[in-house]
Amino acid sequence: MERIPIYKIGSNLLVSIQIDLADRDALALQDDLSNKIVETGAHGVVIDISALEVVDSFVGRMLSTIAAVSRVLDARTVVVGMRPAVAITLVELGLSLPGAETALDVERGMQKIAAGERRDDWTAPEDGPDHDEP
Amino acid sequence: MERIPIYKIGSNLLVSIQIDLADRDALALQDDLSNKIVETGAHGVVIDISALEVVDSFVGRMLSTIAAVSRVLDARTVVVGMRPAVAITLVELGLSLPGAETALDVERGMQKIAAGERRDDWTAPEDGPDHDEP
Repeated sequence: MERIPIYKIGSNLLVSIQIDLADRDALALQDDLSNKIVETGAHGVVIDISALEVVDSFVGRMLSTIAAVSRVLDARTVVVGMRPAVAITLVELGLSLPGAETALDVERGMQKIAAGERRDDWTAPEDGPDHDEP
Repeated sequence: MERIPIYKIGSNLLVSIQIDLADRDALALQDDLSNKIVETGAHGVVIDISALEVVDSFVGRMLSTIAAVSRVLDARTVVVGMRPAVAITLVELGLSLPGAETALDVERGMQKIAAGERRDDWTAPEDGPDHDEP
């Protein structure tokens, strides 16, 4: 059984998937990741799939599940490094990865999470002026 | 042929080796990593081998070569996540990874590189008092 390493980088977690995941590997990854989010209080999860040439419906669903679980645990999920062919396959399979954001590479994925955190901070003042409208 | 992803995290590069490397994979990694160091001006390279259960003399030498090349390119190399059994094997093979530093995990490896950069900055004032000695 293969254990996918999970790295804590700043306030985010990074997962690099390089091997084709068997069912139990994917379940173990979901478990490990959920535990690690709680343990570290991570704000975001960046999942790199640039090494995967094929993403089937099983892996697609796993990514969606991870995104859903992360959201419940107050962390955002960004899938990065998707090959164009993989993107086409996913859409053809009817899997648009609901709940997961995407970015071109790990650096941009991390930036996206950081930018999102800042944007969340800025929303409070923007809500104010609504009350002044007639 | 497998391509090992190289991630730019801040001013460092992170390499996660999860598969047993064939000769040409290892050579490709050395090439990719050297190019990426030059391209990004990275200060450090963190190589995670926590997913490897076996490190033979070939991989051991590859790690030493990467460390030597990185040093010439002004980047430090930290090997992290080594399993105790792997450490024993490496020493028994007579490979003590000259030129490469080690750390327990990726986070500590990154901290080590960051601490080293600060330490380098601090050395300048320490050189001064020598001239005042009789």
